[in-house]
Amino acid sequence: MRLSTLRHACRNLPTPSVHQPRTGVRVFGLAKSSLRLGPSSNSQLLLRAASSVSGTTSAEKAPKLGKQTDGPGYENTIRENVQRTKEEMVALQRGHPALKPTLAIIQADEDDRLLELNKKMAGKIGLNVTQICLPRECTEDEIIEEVLKLNEDPRVHGVYLHLPPASLTSRVLNTLRPEKDVDGVSDLNVGRLVRGDMNQGFIPPLANAVMELLARHDTPMEGRIVLVVGGEGPLGVALQCLMQRRGMVVLHSRRSSEVLQKQANAVVLLAAGHMDVPPTWLKPGTAVIHCGSALMTDHGMEMSGVGPLTAALRMQNVVQSSSRWAQGQQYRPWTLRSLKLQPLSPVPSDIEISRAQTPKPVDQLAQEIGLLQEETEAYGRTKAKVRLSLLDRLREQPDGKYVLVAGITPTPLGEGKSTVVIGLVQALSAHLKLNSFACLRQPSQGPTFGVKGQRGQISTHISMLEISMLINESFNLHLTGDIHAITAANNLVAAAIDARMLHEATQKDKALYSRLVPSVNGVRRFSPIQISRLRRLGISEIDPSALTPQEVSSFVRLDLDPAKVTWQRVVDTNDRFLRKITVGQASTEKGHVRETQFDIAVASEIMAILALADGLGDMKTRLGRMVVGSSRSGQPVTAEDLGVSGALAVLMKDAIKPTLMQTLEGSPVFVHAGPFANIAHGNSSVLADKLALKLVGEDGFVVTEAGFGADIGMEKFFNIKCRASGLRPNVVVLVATVRALKMHGGGPNVSAGSPLPREYIDENLSLVVKGCSSNLRKQIQIAHLFGVPVVVALNVFKTDTQAEIDLVCQMAKESGASDAVPCHHWARGGRGSVELAQAVKQAGSQPSHFQFLYSQETPIVEKIRMIAQKVYGADDIELSPEAQAKIDYYNQQGYGKLPICMAKTHLSLSHLPEKKGAPTGFTLPIRDIRASIGAGFIYPLVGTMSTMPGLPTRPCFYDIDLDPVTEEITGLF
Amino acid sequence: MRLSTLRHACRNLPTPSVHQPRTGVRVFGLAKSSLRLGPSSNSQLLLRAASSVSGTTSAEKAPKLGKQTDGPGYENTIRENVQRTKEEMVALQRGHPALKPTLAIIQADEDDRLLELNKKMAGKIGLNVTQICLPRECTEDEIIEEVLKLNEDPRVHGVYLHLPPASLTSRVLNTLRPEKDVDGVSDLNVGRLVRGDMNQGFIPPLANAVMELLARHDTPMEGRIVLVVGGEGPLGVALQCLMQRRGMVVLHSRRSSEVLQKQANAVVLLAAGHMDVPPTWLKPGTAVIHCGSALMTDHGMEMSGVGPLTAALRMQNVVQSSSRWAQGQQYRPWTLRSLKLQPLSPVPSDIEISRAQTPKPVDQLAQEIGLLQEETEAYGRTKAKVRLSLLDRLREQPDGKYVLVAGITPTPLGEGKSTVVIGLVQALSAHLKLNSFACLRQPSQGPTFGVKGQRGQISTHISMLEISMLINESFNLHLTGDIHAITAANNLVAAAIDARMLHEATQKDKALYSRLVPSVNGVRRFSPIQISRLRRLGISEIDPSALTPQEVSSFVRLDLDPAKVTWQRVVDTNDRFLRKITVGQASTEKGHVRETQFDIAVASEIMAILALADGLGDMKTRLGRMVVGSSRSGQPVTAEDLGVSGALAVLMKDAIKPTLMQTLEGSPVFVHAGPFANIAHGNSSVLADKLALKLVGEDGFVVTEAGFGADIGMEKFFNIKCRASGLRPNVVVLVATVRALKMHGGGPNVSAGSPLPREYIDENLSLVVKGCSSNLRKQIQIAHLFGVPVVVALNVFKTDTQAEIDLVCQMAKESGASDAVPCHHWARGGRGSVELAQAVKQAGSQPSHFQFLYSQETPIVEKIRMIAQKVYGADDIELSPEAQAKIDYYNQQGYGKLPICMAKTHLSLSHLPEKKGAPTGFTLPIRDIRASIGAGFIYPLVGTMSTMPGLPTRPCFYDIDLDPVTEEITGLF
Repeated sequence: MRLSTLRHACRNLPTPSVHQPRTGVRVFGLAKSSLRLGPSSNSQLLLRAASSVSGTTSAEKAPKLGKQTDGPGYENTIRENVQRTKEEMVALQRGHPALKPTLAIIQADEDDRLLELNKKMAGKIGLNVTQICLPRECTEDEIIEEVLKLNEDPRVHGVYLHLPPASLTSRVLNTLRPEKDVDGVSDLNVGRLVRGDMNQGFIPPLANAVMELLARHDTPMEGRIVLVVGGEGPLGVALQCLMQRRGMVVLHSRRSSEVLQKQANAVVLLAAGHMDVPPTWLKPGTAVIHCGSALMTDHGMEMSGVGPLTAALRMQNVVQSSSRWAQGQQYRPWTLRSLKLQPLSPVPSDIEISRAQTPKPVDQLAQEIGLLQEETEAYGRTKAKVRLSLLDRLREQPDGKYVLVAGITPTPLGEGKSTVVIGLVQALSAHLKLNSFACLRQPSQGPTFGVKGQRGQISTHISMLEISMLINESFNLHLTGDIHAITAANNLVAAAIDARMLHEATQKDKALYSRLVPSVNGVRRFSPIQISRLRRLGISEIDPSALTPQEVSSFVRLDLDPAKVTWQRVVDTNDRFLRKITVGQASTEKGHVRETQFDIAVASEIMAILALADGLGDMKTRLGRMVVGSSRSGQPVTAEDLGVSGALAVLMKDAIKPTLMQTLEGSPVFVHAGPFANIAHGNSSVLADKLALKLVGEDGFVVTEAGFGADIGMEKFFNIKCRASGLRPNVVVLVATVRALKMHGGGPNVSAGSPLPREYIDENLSLVVKGCSSNLRKQIQIAHLFGVPVVVALNVFKTDTQAEIDLVCQMAKESGASDAVPCHHWARGGRGSVELAQAVKQAGSQPSHFQFLYSQETPIVEKIRMIAQKVYGADDIELSPEAQAKIDYYNQQGYGKLPICMAKTHLSLSHLPEKKGAPTGFTLPIRDIRASIGAGFIYPLVGTMSTMPGLPTRPCFYDIDLDPVTEEITGLF
Repeated sequence: MRLSTLRHACRNLPTPSVHQPRTGVRVFGLAKSSLRLGPSSNSQLLLRAASSVSGTTSAEKAPKLGKQTDGPGYENTIRENVQRTKEEMVALQRGHPALKPTLAIIQADEDDRLLELNKKMAGKIGLNVTQICLPRECTEDEIIEEVLKLNEDPRVHGVYLHLPPASLTSRVLNTLRPEKDVDGVSDLNVGRLVRGDMNQGFIPPLANAVMELLARHDTPMEGRIVLVVGGEGPLGVALQCLMQRRGMVVLHSRRSSEVLQKQANAVVLLAAGHMDVPPTWLKPGTAVIHCGSALMTDHGMEMSGVGPLTAALRMQNVVQSSSRWAQGQQYRPWTLRSLKLQPLSPVPSDIEISRAQTPKPVDQLAQEIGLLQEETEAYGRTKAKVRLSLLDRLREQPDGKYVLVAGITPTPLGEGKSTVVIGLVQALSAHLKLNSFACLRQPSQGPTFGVKGQRGQISTHISMLEISMLINESFNLHLTGDIHAITAANNLVAAAIDARMLHEATQKDKALYSRLVPSVNGVRRFSPIQISRLRRLGISEIDPSALTPQEVSSFVRLDLDPAKVTWQRVVDTNDRFLRKITVGQASTEKGHVRETQFDIAVASEIMAILALADGLGDMKTRLGRMVVGSSRSGQPVTAEDLGVSGALAVLMKDAIKPTLMQTLEGSPVFVHAGPFANIAHGNSSVLADKLALKLVGEDGFVVTEAGFGADIGMEKFFNIKCRASGLRPNVVVLVATVRALKMHGGGPNVSAGSPLPREYIDENLSLVVKGCSSNLRKQIQIAHLFGVPVVVALNVFKTDTQAEIDLVCQMAKESGASDAVPCHHWARGGRGSVELAQAVKQAGSQPSHFQFLYSQETPIVEKIRMIAQKVYGADDIELSPEAQAKIDYYNQQGYGKLPICMAKTHLSLSHLPEKKGAPTGFTLPIRDIRASIGAGFIYPLVGTMSTMPGLPTRPCFYDIDLDPVTEEITGLF
């Protein structure tokens, strides 16, 4: 492959390099050769090269350039520019020691001297140079391919296209990213220069060189006439703009003529050809700069003509580009554009109104919040995954304030925590103009098609109702496929478990071993995953033929006890018939039937891992150590023992990137992970929070949500999620509703599908008082246990009276809340949450004295007891024999230091859903205990937890429809 | 909402409108008011307005503009321009009757007269005008929001920003899409104008107006000096460039001065202020054009100054923009950029080499093949979904050639059809420079983690091996999530079936009815899906309270027979323990246990529907009519009866868009659908083929693939897929290998995992001869049955000898192939398939006489017999009693006209896998018959088909790993 060979030969050249720009003007040298100045000329040559030029009258004979470098003007100009650029380099590298400013050169054919000159200049200044050599006859496509690679290469800060003029097509010039176009001749950069925006483009080095030389002329040029000959197109225009900006009067002509020359105080000859300027045409004292057809000499290349100065200024542009790149890597202030929220009443039906709700394209949102282009991966037009490399880039950036939205013990209808999150973020960003980010959990598909309001009973995933507050994304239920990836990974483990049990049951050690460690082309070798297992077994031998029969046996036999497999299959569907099933009934499975179950996908331990992992490596480790069951001898068997951990990491590698979306008012949202709130911790992902905290910056806010009431979601957020992430919360927002408070105050039962009793519709202050003094007060106290200030957000319903609202706010403050405010976000969007945003801002400025409820070292039983007593208000706990046995087993396995994830009803502070308010005098029964070793917690079961919702007689899907012509969806909300 | 109200007030204005541009130059009028010309002046005013101007000496007093409109020059100029633009409009609308060229105006504050002038001009020319009124004090964000909406609005072709200069920020100007920037002042458009590229940008109307006026001056301006005063920035630069391009010598000064004026043959006063030009400063005959501060008069607005001409030229730009838009909607020739393929041997390890394999960004690939920006939805950087609206846009575009790649009866190792597809497309596009597209099936994840080479036995989905020929996309196993969407949809149906059976079994008619048709806010109403069911039941009543008890009963009871449920759950995992299971064993399901099974996801009927649907509406209809089982009385029960069809369409609405990817050489590929090749038809999607056929254009090629041997895949492609799509194939490429031919010639057994017998490694011409004269000849004859020319592609392995290769090619041609050529794509990429590409091109130029094997009307039994006899070579068929009963049932249900999808082994032309070559003298047994009513075919079962692969003792996942730092994946291939 000639191309490849050439590239190979050219790259890694030790020395740097230069050439001609892509404007059609070939060369930057001062072509004294063709400038006929008689000895009697009184014109003034800027380069003061008279000594070498005088007497030269033949255009053909190249003058010696020897001593002109002594001329103080030109040489100084170069020296000063080089010096300045060097100093900029030093300053830049002081601030960014890892940065290696680099110029890439694409050249066709051999090196030439101009290239040499530029490379030497780059070396002088300390720039890296990467040179890509293409054959002389290379096609436009080949050049484009190289340009595209350089565009994507973050190590390259400037690109110099040293190509024949015919190759410098519009397509080539405009394919190069403007931020790397250090010759400033792409259409966009020329336009920027014309408009005078020099924050983004680059001054073409040759134009800059001419300006430098003019600036050093004895006579100030302002107000004087400068004749520019030749050079139509970008270069000439750039030069004219620069001259006009310095107050010169520019006379631009295609050709030189005596009449014109006589007018000018300076003459700049841009084009090759038409370059004869008899001295008699020039006014006395006229400066002449000749930029055409230089470098015709054999000697003195380094200093000949404007070439060296142009090269120096090109390098200056590379340094400037590197500096901008480094700047771009820094934290960037937001330029968030809020979207106007349309009034919700009367419901808008006009197409013009719906058009007004157009979301921002996600790449634009990403740019507004300071994400780099290479940090996002678009999924359609309004979603993007954000790469974790951001965390590394903004390593030094202080985090923003961390706000947790939790709730009082809810009614089965839910109290609107997710809507508070969205309203609060909209108020902070669109109305208070503070950077802020919402972090939400991904909704499960199952309940979407199941029961309206079911999430209150079954899980606390945000429903489509909340998601409808996120623009347009109601319309792709799969989002970016994270839950599907979890399903695939989870079920691969399940399939591996049953298949392995079958194969172990039907094969002898030797057969198993020869299949597990087969001979491939005559070589037997353990795979890396198998070597990990050998290490865990204490076998250091890695030659498959050297294992003892006993070692072979312990290696090949996981010896899983079918009765002790804890891993379940999952689907993201409400499929009640899969709650208990028997598998393996086909004849091919030879009678190895087994009872097992399917859970809803979000109940998978892999979802909990996704939510707690702090990087790809951490996720992979957690996936590998997931315990799927235990052997007949009681040893835990892990995903890595099954050999599947690498495949799981591959399946999950994209799911680990949070999904960026936006609210109806254009505020940024991360939707990521959504673990079950009972058997897992029910919080969105650590990574989404971490990315968001970096992005909002020191004065910004990240609002994240905890599932269920504060006794469950918030407690787990603090003790599990914050422990895993190392993040510390600044404020807790506790969401309350008059409806739930009345229920806690003794109001009648509330259930989904039934009409609300009158107590909840009419004013009833006494129920409110009782609710506030029991559940609300207790939940505030729980937050204070952890040392975090609390703001109570009363989610106002239209039936709430002003007296009720005032009462709640007053009693919340009396119970220790920093503030308590009503929220009207549902009706008014962010505007309805401004008061809440102000209260949160105020609370966030107070010091937070966060502390965990228990230390890791506390024994399992004590941890459970502390939660039961201090958080739930129980007198004590009572362990079943199964629970006690499990605790002993976990201690023996070394799991004793894991935090506790209580699986308790969310409908009461106690374990009894009907006990409202703040129950006391109860003993919390611990029925059984399980462990998610990969996720890293132990979960005691208090009562029975359903992990698979069902479909009712008339599921939601009856109302869901798609218009195949307009693609409009109905019935999702 | 003030903004909204204002918009509302302003939109829908019956009349069109104009204003000042965003360059800082406020107005375009000729301000005679400030031009002091004494009566003795011999300067020549271009507008010949001397009569009205003469005698006016005070700058403050506005002159009457009255009669200047009589001047033949100016008035004619306007008239001619308006006339020309009108003619362009007429021509444009003749070619595109549906097109309504539209100018959008964003204005702040009240209408003014300039706006009036522009709107009138728009009306004169016949343009639509949309006006967006913002409050005077609107923010930059509000303007940006409107600009972004207009950017996205395909009905708007030009945008005119009638805003105060302070609002015309760089952000506003550069947010507007350059193709709608009809004032030509965005940075990019200015740069284009400077470079002289007028195919894309726009000439700023004012600059254009000045040029028009200069062109009408008595003296030709070429070579003359034109003085431009004021107007730094885009407008001045644009004007200068235009002047220079017409050979004028431009003198540009910020201020006017006597010295300069004396030089000029024409003076253009661009800026407001500094506008005093005493006549004595001007040379005789000097043209003066004044563009500053016009429109100070009360009368004659319409014709005053350069305003009207500028307005006319702005409208000309809108017409030009509309014309470009219409042009852009047309078929666009490709500009495909091929990627250099790196040599495969020695295996490249150098990072520079891997860098050379950088894929094209998918948006660039999309642009290269003529897709519009709005027709793609990116999924990450190298994949995009393509919208079906393309089919409508290119309705009139003739299709390209349609090439099917099929194979001879394969060995269990597979013969490399997918690689032939990719190699052929690369040869056609990268080497023959013909537009071409590959259409491939999406691989199932299951086998990826299962057995290497398993696809040969279990399914014919392309493996990761083939996918590795698609750039980078090996790395996201989920692709764009289509299989996951199918899984979700399929399992929702399954959950709905079991839940419905439970609810019917446990509730009386009345209870069921009150739940299925609940009272919401006191109103009972059938949902649209329920009304469809009522119709099918023959109930015309749509008032829920008016149904008779019997009608209620037949409405609420699907009465599914648990033993006759044919719908299965699916997972995309090789999970053998799910081949036969019992569900419903939890107590909550009250003993309603049932035996059932899981299939691999790609075996879902929904996958077959995705592959056969020709649009969203068709897919929705097919999903609704899927039969999931039958009632106890023998009636088919459909997905729509379950009420789930709308939800299915919603779940599948993104999956229906094919996924655009690329090969290693940069050729475009659609990856879409991948139905099982035994119980379904095993072909990629109709929609991908249709989109690709439009995109490649009349002379291009679309290469699609049929699973298994030609007797199965090709037969189904013709009889099922082509019947559904209406597409007609031009060429069949029949893939053969020496290995498979030797097997058919009597060579020993070949199986995955075992070493190949010597016969397959050493030259053995006699086995090759026998293989060619049996299986190869027969498969060629099968293709000829359908009237399509055949090219045999011999996929060369390194053990093949030249004599073997020559022999196959010779015998293939003797058997009737149009041509037969060896292919070396695996070793050499597209270059290795050039000969094949040429043969396909040649064959494609021959007439194709395509015909179906059977007519729809043929009875089911006859259709089966025709396939068995004519395609497989059987003597006859033998129906089991079950099969006969099913045929009777299907005939009774009206399914008799459906095509037949044979479920037969792919390892033999007969039903016996061990019978190689071209068996004869056998009777094909039809064990049972099933139907996919949604997909639209009946599938007779010839033998047992596994629909769930399993995991072996050492699945592939043992070797799969992810490096968490580099994110590199190992072990997938």
